[in-house]
Amino acid sequence: MELAVEKYKLAKEPYYLPVANEVDLFNAAYSARLPVLLKGPTGCGKTRFVEYMAFKLGRPLITVACHEDLSSTDLVGRFLLEANETVWHDGPLTKAVRSGAICYLDEVVEARKDTVVIIHPLTDDRRRLPIEKRGTVIDAPPEFMLVVSYNPGYQSVLKDLKQSTRQRFVAMEFDYPPVDSEIAIVAREGGVDETLARDLVTIGHKIRNLRGHGLEEGVSTRLLIYAAQMTAKGIDPIAAAEVALCSPITDDRELGRSIREIITTVL
Amino acid sequence: MELAVEKYKLAKEPYYLPVANEVDLFNAAYSARLPVLLKGPTGCGKTRFVEYMAFKLGRPLITVACHEDLSSTDLVGRFLLEANETVWHDGPLTKAVRSGAICYLDEVVEARKDTVVIIHPLTDDRRRLPIEKRGTVIDAPPEFMLVVSYNPGYQSVLKDLKQSTRQRFVAMEFDYPPVDSEIAIVAREGGVDETLARDLVTIGHKIRNLRGHGLEEGVSTRLLIYAAQMTAKGIDPIAAAEVALCSPITDDRELGRSIREIITTVL
Amino acid sequence: MELAVEKYKLAKEPYYLPVANEVDLFNAAYSARLPVLLKGPTGCGKTRFVEYMAFKLGRPLITVACHEDLSSTDLVGRFLLEANETVWHDGPLTKAVRSGAICYLDEVVEARKDTVVIIHPLTDDRRRLPIEKRGTVIDAPPEFMLVVSYNPGYQSVLKDLKQSTRQRFVAMEFDYPPVDSEIAIVAREGGVDETLARDLVTIGHKIRNLRGHGLEEGVSTRLLIYAAQMTAKGIDPIAAAEVALCSPITDDRELGRSIREIITTVL
Amino acid sequence: MELAVEKYKLAKEPYYLPVANEVDLFNAAYSARLPVLLKGPTGCGKTRFVEYMAFKLGRPLITVACHEDLSSTDLVGRFLLEANETVWHDGPLTKAVRSGAICYLDEVVEARKDTVVIIHPLTDDRRRLPIEKRGTVIDAPPEFMLVVSYNPGYQSVLKDLKQSTRQRFVAMEFDYPPVDSEIAIVAREGGVDETLARDLVTIGHKIRNLRGHGLEEGVSTRLLIYAAQMTAKGIDPIAAAEVALCSPITDDRELGRSIREIITTVL
Amino acid sequence: MELAVEKYKLAKEPYYLPVANEVDLFNAAYSARLPVLLKGPTGCGKTRFVEYMAFKLGRPLITVACHEDLSSTDLVGRFLLEANETVWHDGPLTKAVRSGAICYLDEVVEARKDTVVIIHPLTDDRRRLPIEKRGTVIDAPPEFMLVVSYNPGYQSVLKDLKQSTRQRFVAMEFDYPPVDSEIAIVAREGGVDETLARDLVTIGHKIRNLRGHGLEEGVSTRLLIYAAQMTAKGIDPIAAAEVALCSPITDDRELGRSIREIITTVL
Amino acid sequence: MELAVEKYKLAKEPYYLPVANEVDLFNAAYSARLPVLLKGPTGCGKTRFVEYMAFKLGRPLITVACHEDLSSTDLVGRFLLEANETVWHDGPLTKAVRSGAICYLDEVVEARKDTVVIIHPLTDDRRRLPIEKRGTVIDAPPEFMLVVSYNPGYQSVLKDLKQSTRQRFVAMEFDYPPVDSEIAIVAREGGVDETLARDLVTIGHKIRNLRGHGLEEGVSTRLLIYAAQMTAKGIDPIAAAEVALCSPITDDRELGRSIREIITTVL
Repeated sequence: MELAVEKYKLAKEPYYLPVANEVDLFNAAYSARLPVLLKGPTGCGKTRFVEYMAFKLGRPLITVACHEDLSSTDLVGRFLLEANETVWHDGPLTKAVRSGAICYLDEVVEARKDTVVIIHPLTDDRRRLPIEKRGTVIDAPPEFMLVVSYNPGYQSVLKDLKQSTRQRFVAMEFDYPPVDSEIAIVAREGGVDETLARDLVTIGHKIRNLRGHGLEEGVSTRLLIYAAQMTAKGIDPIAAAEVALCSPITDDRELGRSIREIITTVL
Repeated sequence: MELAVEKYKLAKEPYYLPVANEVDLFNAAYSARLPVLLKGPTGCGKTRFVEYMAFKLGRPLITVACHEDLSSTDLVGRFLLEANETVWHDGPLTKAVRSGAICYLDEVVEARKDTVVIIHPLTDDRRRLPIEKRGTVIDAPPEFMLVVSYNPGYQSVLKDLKQSTRQRFVAMEFDYPPVDSEIAIVAREGGVDETLARDLVTIGHKIRNLRGHGLEEGVSTRLLIYAAQMTAKGIDPIAAAEVALCSPITDDRELGRSIREIITTVL
Repeated sequence: MELAVEKYKLAKEPYYLPVANEVDLFNAAYSARLPVLLKGPTGCGKTRFVEYMAFKLGRPLITVACHEDLSSTDLVGRFLLEANETVWHDGPLTKAVRSGAICYLDEVVEARKDTVVIIHPLTDDRRRLPIEKRGTVIDAPPEFMLVVSYNPGYQSVLKDLKQSTRQRFVAMEFDYPPVDSEIAIVAREGGVDETLARDLVTIGHKIRNLRGHGLEEGVSTRLLIYAAQMTAKGIDPIAAAEVALCSPITDDRELGRSIREIITTVL
Repeated sequence: MELAVEKYKLAKEPYYLPVANEVDLFNAAYSARLPVLLKGPTGCGKTRFVEYMAFKLGRPLITVACHEDLSSTDLVGRFLLEANETVWHDGPLTKAVRSGAICYLDEVVEARKDTVVIIHPLTDDRRRLPIEKRGTVIDAPPEFMLVVSYNPGYQSVLKDLKQSTRQRFVAMEFDYPPVDSEIAIVAREGGVDETLARDLVTIGHKIRNLRGHGLEEGVSTRLLIYAAQMTAKGIDPIAAAEVALCSPITDDRELGRSIREIITTVL
Repeated sequence: MELAVEKYKLAKEPYYLPVANEVDLFNAAYSARLPVLLKGPTGCGKTRFVEYMAFKLGRPLITVACHEDLSSTDLVGRFLLEANETVWHDGPLTKAVRSGAICYLDEVVEARKDTVVIIHPLTDDRRRLPIEKRGTVIDAPPEFMLVVSYNPGYQSVLKDLKQSTRQRFVAMEFDYPPVDSEIAIVAREGGVDETLARDLVTIGHKIRNLRGHGLEEGVSTRLLIYAAQMTAKGIDPIAAAEVALCSPITDDRELGRSIREIITTVL
Repeated sequence: MELAVEKYKLAKEPYYLPVANEVDLFNAAYSARLPVLLKGPTGCGKTRFVEYMAFKLGRPLITVACHEDLSSTDLVGRFLLEANETVWHDGPLTKAVRSGAICYLDEVVEARKDTVVIIHPLTDDRRRLPIEKRGTVIDAPPEFMLVVSYNPGYQSVLKDLKQSTRQRFVAMEFDYPPVDSEIAIVAREGGVDETLARDLVTIGHKIRNLRGHGLEEGVSTRLLIYAAQMTAKGIDPIAAAEVALCSPITDDRELGRSIREIITTVL
């Protein structure tokens, strides 16, 4: 069974620059067998951090992108008809519990209520997963860990996480990386020199300052890397910045014009 | 059949510190074969109390976390296709009735209406469970008991329990444990000395006083234990308190700042 | 077929104290083959009355607790796959029609529209049940009777019964039993002496007077019996009254305090 | 095939007292192969009229009570699994078209939109029923007739019939029968003498005058017959009138009192 | 395959009186392989026009009445279980594409979004139908044509056709036929002489003038024909006009009175 | 497997006139393995551009028209019953990932949330598609590319793309082609001479100026081509312009009159 999840082990160490004490906190939670909640904006590195920790801890990582049609059945498993018989197929959460993997539910608030509730018995001292459709219960091995993420910036428009769910997690807050880290990341992942990376990060900070002035969310580190990659493929930096840093984040003409001005001022 | 539920018996006595006359009341209700409703905030010990009573009474405990997609079929049972034939599989409620277990429906208001109604004939003097899909009725043995819980703090935002359902239960009210009990619990479960436990409980009380000032619900005993556990794993108490007592319960910047001030003042 | 419903016959006469002419009215409706609608608050004895009449008339009683997911299929029957073939299974209504039982739909307004409409041809002079999924129609024998109940106190918040449905029934109005009857019932069913029963009924009347002052519905006879039963099991009468007459019916602090005052004043 | 619908033929002439030219209009529509829409309040005799005309025309009558979960599949037919194969089963509409029966859709506005649209090609000069799930079309024989009913009193609260549907029918308006007819009907169907019947009809007219003063809909002829039948079974006329003419039609205390006054004044 | 749709060929020329250049426009669109959108009120002759053009062009005509439960599966086809295997069954649209028929989606705005979108690739220069459930794509032969209709009078209350759908069609506007044409149609189809036909058309025009004065939609040519047919079957013209031109189109008492006055004034 | 998608390769180069640097940007994104988002109004050439690039890059193109019932199952694949066994069938997205095709999700905002989320792991550096129903994950080959489109003009009325989705794409903005390009396109595709094409484009520009004066969206290049094609089939240019440029885009009488005036003024 352990073998079956080998493919969920990360082959090489993901690139991640620690920012504060997040590695220690995660290790302590893992060792105390506490579930972890990662809070932070889109594209600030939450997923990468979980991949990094899974690699460091030597555990397989099973990721599920949550959405409003994700049912507990999708997570836990279902019966399928095979050769005239219904055969049980483990869902990703059951697979993770069985094999002591790290299960990462990305954007957990998007999931349906039954999906959120199914993790309750896994997140207190019982650490067990009831599989109601089979009438059994499986106990999580010490290696199993549950990590969920959500973006508090959406909190007001979308359904919030219930307190009875939230209060089952140790919560770590994430934000975009500090300037120097972000420059290093953009240069390395985008394949450009530090000068251009610094310019792109400068643009990124100026765009993030537009939040509260009509911009829903700041530009992510990922988009800064896209701009770098487009330049590395021969596109003019200004054109690259427009398609990577302006058009993806807004459809508003005024905002678009402001962002384009930022781009041409810096580059 | 009795054997099949042996796995739902608790192997060792769960740690529970009685607060008032709750044990006597539960015993009387059990002996009078009355269903019990537990009311109280998130993480104040309702689940632990039911586990404790189930152990003391020597009954298996079958717990179902209710959610808005929980159907009566999920509780009672369903037909599954096996080798060209539909075979009946008991749901958790049916299993509990058949074997004289204690059935605990956690956060029952979250369940769908059909789920709530299915328990009606079990909660009056008929004490029977009609299994409409099979066209049969099973009578509950004297040992069977139904316990449900709900959090009245949610009452205004979520759908309330109907009077025709509520008036079928003896209701016991729970709250966070008294100071000394809570210190003992945090020290024991969190693996820390009484001094730190006392500090954490002090923080807990101060945070609970913020209810009505923007905080939806107070910090639970469970989170106090998390903070203790993180410290026991080597994390600085202030950092541990932040990830366990602040970030999980609010996304609001102002509230977060107030809670952090409480933490640094006490620790 | 008649045998199959034998288990729905009541083995011994249910305890019921007639209040007015309700027994005569029910007998006349039965003999004129008219369907009956019982109106009244939660826990005032409607279900017990139907059980009593079913026993007196010597008919099996098939009860269905209605809820908003109850479909006409649940009532009429469904095809199930058995050994490669779909086999028809009668639902409770069909079973009642076939065997000349009394079918009692409890809280009929809760059911879905298709469920309510399916009873139309059974409730006029046709007295027939079309089983559309099988393309057949079955005629009700003279012994068959349909009884439905609903609580007009909910009428304003829930969907009302349509006139085209209501006007198919003879309607009988129920309320809590008169004082002396209620004392006799509480003493007998609760296993306490008349003095305590009288005190509990006094408390019940005072609580019912709070209706219109924030209390949604009065305390039912059933809860008065619960309080008596808890006392009979050794609980202090005041504590018993609190868990049976106060906590189940309100979550409001002010109301709770008023009810507790009533309890301590009387006991 | 024709034989299969023999059971839908009425065995004896239903009792119906023609009021105006409705029989001629229906005969003309039948002979011109036009579909008919019956408009009128609950229990005024629309269903009885259709039964009467079906008997007079010597056609089987297939009635479907429409409700908001009635799908086109329910009307047209479905595939069912039988011995490893899906076998087609005609729905009531298809059965009616095939055998030249009269198909009566009672309260058609209650049905889902797909159900209403399925009758469109049957109600213009094409007179054909496409069975999309089988990929075939069947032509209606000259004997087939479609009749639908609806209650315009509900029109404002429920979804209205679309013009594109309405304009496919010849529409006949119904109301409660004139005084003398209604007395004859109540006496005959209720099994009472003309004096009591006259009194009950007088009460009925007075109650109907309360419409617009809080009463949603007047008391139907059917309920007047119920009151008569209860009296014929030995119930006191005033008590019979209360359970048949007052309690079924309103839950409002004031209205109830007014109706009871009408009853005691007349009887 | 071509044979299978033979039954969708019209056996004889439908009666249609061309009003303007609609025949030329339709022929040009057919020859340029452009899809056509017919706009106009209920019962003004859109369906008849398509039948006429299908006959003239010698193509089979497959008509689908759209409704809000019509899914893309209903149009494209589905798998059905036959003798232990799922077998594909073409839906009406697929059948039309395969055989080069004219596919007519009547009242297309009523259909679900997935139904509307499925026609997109058929309505640009690709002219292909992807059958996602089978993973194939079929190319439409030159003879295939898609025609849809909708009633812009409903546009404000119902969901509108999206621009991305509308801009895929050549659109032709329809209205009730001019006076002389309509008289000829009513006389011919209704089986009455020109004098009565003229009177009925006069009534129709007067009623149509009530639009904007409470009348949702004018009386259709079809209803004028109904009135004529009822008269031809021996009903008095005024009674025939009432059941065909007044009752079907309104439930409003005032409007009904106005229409009846128009009828008695003219006839 | 590669062979199976051969039919998705475009046989001949689609006609496309590049406007700015869009071809370079697309090539750079393809080479950097970045997903692309195309923004622009209905019928401005986004689909044609993707076809053109797919041809130039020599990749198969799998297009999916998104709609609000498009589920992740439709995209990824499903189990179907074949000869007593459930057999997996790849959906279009899985097929594209497996074979290194370009997958084009047209109007992606229309799709359900689960459909949008399923593409997340494909659009960051993981480039993998988890197939949860099979419990496997497939890695995208370097040739695979994901392209999505949406129309920001609808953004305010429909659900917007979430930032967590948008920030995964390089975004390119499209608009109607410049005058000379559009004339060339209309002449070539519509089969008319440049004079008429110029007139039609002039009309198009004037109609587009009505946006903001009641017109939801401007007339598309596709409709200009339709007008040309109708003329080429012998229809008078003014009549052709009316059915192609006026009736399809508005139901408003005033707007219709304004557009007709534009047409008659120019032609």
